[in-house]
Amino acid sequence: MDKTINSSLRSWLPVEKGSDFPIQNIPFGIFRTGVNSPHAATRIGNTVIDLFALAEHGFLEGLGINPGIFNFKYLNPLFELGKQSCRALRKQLVLIFEDQNTAARDRIMSENDILFDEPAVHMLLPVKAGDYTDFYSSLEHATNVGIMFRDPAHALLPNWKHLPVGYHGRSSSIVVSGTSIHRPKGQIKPADSEMPVFSPSRELDFELEIAFITGKKTALGSSVSTADAEDHIIGMLLFNDLSARDIQRWEYVPLGPFLSKNFGSLVSPWVVTLDALEPFRIPGPVQEPEVLPYLKFKGDHNFDIHLDVFIQPEGQHETRVCHSNYKFMYWNMAQQLAHQTVNGCNINVGDLYASGTVSGPTPDAFGSMLEIAWKGTKPVKMPDGTERSFINDHDTIIMRGYCEKPGLRVGFGEVVTKIMPAV
Amino acid sequence: MDKTINSSLRSWLPVEKGSDFPIQNIPFGIFRTGVNSPHAATRIGNTVIDLFALAEHGFLEGLGINPGIFNFKYLNPLFELGKQSCRALRKQLVLIFEDQNTAARDRIMSENDILFDEPAVHMLLPVKAGDYTDFYSSLEHATNVGIMFRDPAHALLPNWKHLPVGYHGRSSSIVVSGTSIHRPKGQIKPADSEMPVFSPSRELDFELEIAFITGKKTALGSSVSTADAEDHIIGMLLFNDLSARDIQRWEYVPLGPFLSKNFGSLVSPWVVTLDALEPFRIPGPVQEPEVLPYLKFKGDHNFDIHLDVFIQPEGQHETRVCHSNYKFMYWNMAQQLAHQTVNGCNINVGDLYASGTVSGPTPDAFGSMLEIAWKGTKPVKMPDGTERSFINDHDTIIMRGYCEKPGLRVGFGEVVTKIMPAV
Repeated sequence: MDKTINSSLRSWLPVEKGSDFPIQNIPFGIFRTGVNSPHAATRIGNTVIDLFALAEHGFLEGLGINPGIFNFKYLNPLFELGKQSCRALRKQLVLIFEDQNTAARDRIMSENDILFDEPAVHMLLPVKAGDYTDFYSSLEHATNVGIMFRDPAHALLPNWKHLPVGYHGRSSSIVVSGTSIHRPKGQIKPADSEMPVFSPSRELDFELEIAFITGKKTALGSSVSTADAEDHIIGMLLFNDLSARDIQRWEYVPLGPFLSKNFGSLVSPWVVTLDALEPFRIPGPVQEPEVLPYLKFKGDHNFDIHLDVFIQPEGQHETRVCHSNYKFMYWNMAQQLAHQTVNGCNINVGDLYASGTVSGPTPDAFGSMLEIAWKGTKPVKMPDGTERSFINDHDTIIMRGYCEKPGLRVGFGEVVTKIMPAV
Repeated sequence: MDKTINSSLRSWLPVEKGSDFPIQNIPFGIFRTGVNSPHAATRIGNTVIDLFALAEHGFLEGLGINPGIFNFKYLNPLFELGKQSCRALRKQLVLIFEDQNTAARDRIMSENDILFDEPAVHMLLPVKAGDYTDFYSSLEHATNVGIMFRDPAHALLPNWKHLPVGYHGRSSSIVVSGTSIHRPKGQIKPADSEMPVFSPSRELDFELEIAFITGKKTALGSSVSTADAEDHIIGMLLFNDLSARDIQRWEYVPLGPFLSKNFGSLVSPWVVTLDALEPFRIPGPVQEPEVLPYLKFKGDHNFDIHLDVFIQPEGQHETRVCHSNYKFMYWNMAQQLAHQTVNGCNINVGDLYASGTVSGPTPDAFGSMLEIAWKGTKPVKMPDGTERSFINDHDTIIMRGYCEKPGLRVGFGEVVTKIMPAV
């Protein structure tokens, strides 16, 4: 664990009050400027820092990191170096950019290829996910969906409190924040019809999620214990698991969601390390009944991360429709990864594991429109008076996530997507 | 379509009667010998032909193919050249190895780095699958499973005849034939217990499948029609979708199979091209009710591929437990790919799409032990008198697939795995 987080540290780079990216964060991302090839980067305030350029200018010597790994379109080669190397890199970056280091400041400011204004760069997908799992780990979300899609009297299925339910998703359709997504078309069975119809989805939804990324692989046949799980987890992202509820309802029995979920899933561009989130670690909900031994864990593996969702209809202000928190999750990351591998399933660097919709106990903390508007019975008002039970064409969905305590804020920035009409 | 298949063609390389690999096949694979790095290869009879060496010796000039793509551990770069290039390469290989070409024979025989005896080489995973989908396209299999797992009176779910049901699987745990797999451990809920237990699976099963591989990618938001689907399909493989039925039964509602399927999935090492399978194209079953327009198709998209499964207990002869045929599949590849992409889901080169268990209409054609032994009520006898309802530790599962008509046999070879005790 990173015990060096010092909330009084300041950077010589400007950091506005309320920024998600103080010198205590030091996330990793991939960016491109104009015609340049993609490079790895970190960010302080609104300044994007080119790690390849920084390495080429000799600032990262002594870490034993080949600068070439920063000259690549994904962070996978960096994460493959292991958590210790990423930790050493972050510490070195703190030393370079902390406000006492005027020598580094003067040298870096004299170069024109290291620092970039955030709005002027193009952020890219940070990792190439070989595999992507979507869990279903919020008790409140699973209960809400069970009530609406299945039987209110038995909303939670018998297995739910015994294992972190999850399923495999499509990795090809994971894209970076800022990508517009066309409304999917597919089979829908109207309630009053015997036969399905082919139509653009009429129930396009978001799911507010957080995903973790593995930074250490395993061999087929081996398992990761809850005690070792965080050695394999490099950091986290915001994740918008776009879902077409009408397509989902018709297709998902018996083998699970398929086309309702693989037309576009959005990630935020900055991988926030578990080390940066360390000050926000908290206990999770009590798990009752007792879980099987391989799912037991020691220590705190939940994190106090505020999560907000906004809808912004075209030409209007954004309206917050959800204020949730990752701390509500019933199953934690260590349990999720232990479960994923308990049968010998192998994992790779860059794999993505999404939490499932992060819904809290109160209606304002529900993490999907399905729940917020309760299957259309409680639509949400927009500034222009129109209502939303689901997402309209040309609506922009914005999710933000941040941790906060006195004197310290560490955040994820945002994951944004605009919904375009069906092709 | 490849109209050049001439069943009277012979190669100057020996091809035993009954071989799956006459000069009419020319499949693609990846092999390694001793300390050499992996190269792309084809195979005629029992001779593995190193395509990198062949290119380095100048035999593939004029095709415009960079030999470097054969000097790689996966076939993805070859398939990325497109179907036309692969077709031209196969034609060139036929010219080189057909029995009239004594000049090529003499030159090739004088080199020691082109031809290898099949038993002496190590075959590797042929493609790196970015994503893997498992369909569920056999009417007989879906009906059998529905009867056993759900309600005999409503065995087939309402959506099944309207869309090719499928779900995303784990690509990391796809391995090549010959890899041994440990029996998975996981949560199982015994019928007489309220609580799940943690145990090695007691119902380890195979699923006899065929997978196709895409050789042409699409952009997010675009769709592939049934008419264009085969332009995107480069070839096929045998696929053993190992399944732990007891883990599956407890975990799969509501989001589908997860740990019951991702502890090891086996593929055969040779990608047999659609071109080579052309003579075995046949009509599929009549689809009733009529499918939606995007699933309608012209022409024949089923293939007459005999599929056998054998169990070989340690120290014993193999026993055939299934003789099925890919021709029984209700949904064809063109429909599967059109469905996969109808919502805009993007596909990549090397993606794998498995058929689902290939069960035929009679009990001897059922493609899983669950069906063959009918949930344990009809166990199968092995030569030593022991019975199998599922797979025992140290059993080897062998699947073979081939097409045959007078004077022509084109096959897949086999996909083999030995089940080892739980770790």
